[in-house]
Amino acid sequence: MTTRELAADFVALLKQGRDHDAAAKYNAADIVSYEAMDGPMAEMRGSEALQQKAQWWTGNHEVHSAEVTGPYVNGDSFCVRFVYDFTRKETGERLTMDEIGVYVVKDGKIASERFFYAQG
Amino acid sequence: MTTRELAADFVALLKQGRDHDAAAKYNAADIVSYEAMDGPMAEMRGSEALQQKAQWWTGNHEVHSAEVTGPYVNGDSFCVRFVYDFTRKETGERLTMDEIGVYVVKDGKIASERFFYAQG
Repeated sequence: MTTRELAADFVALLKQGRDHDAAAKYNAADIVSYEAMDGPMAEMRGSEALQQKAQWWTGNHEVHSAEVTGPYVNGDSFCVRFVYDFTRKETGERLTMDEIGVYVVKDGKIASERFFYAQG
Repeated sequence: MTTRELAADFVALLKQGRDHDAAAKYNAADIVSYEAMDGPMAEMRGSEALQQKAQWWTGNHEVHSAEVTGPYVNGDSFCVRFVYDFTRKETGERLTMDEIGVYVVKDGKIASERFFYAQG
């Protein structure tokens, strides 16, 4: 499976809202995830840790809509753009998050993911 | 100047169509550029080579509109999304290009750029 094929299938799952399935199918067991923030989520390692992070996200945010664009491919890497309209349950704030994920593929699995956020 | 400040100024110049000024101000002399294609432009080195590439692009394409979104920042890196509506002068084809650039900053300059393209 080429990076292009993997990226296309991964994003097709995300577009169906099947984020959990996409991660289960393609995240390497030792995947590294880089967030654009300080604190415990800045760098997380391992597919289990990422699954816990995803559960935290789902539990604490109500997503009204998610727009998924891509994949954008180059060599062994690809990007996906996400625009989320969501409410932070704790505060009731309704927010828009405009985000790009950059994924690196190795041996048919996603070896790392790095998230970038639009300002403002 | 932080990566966030550099990215904001760089993208502000791009949004004004001042691509040449943005490159002249921020590209490191030994910048490396990675394109998602085979051939001589797959990996180019040096700000002068990139200037020539930009001149080739400008000379061979008529750009009808350019939508620039970002920057999206994470640590020493940032992304910019470009949507170009353009005509390839040689063939007369009118095309849309949906592209993400990922830039890495080092010592206040852009050390590398890597371009990713949406399929289809």
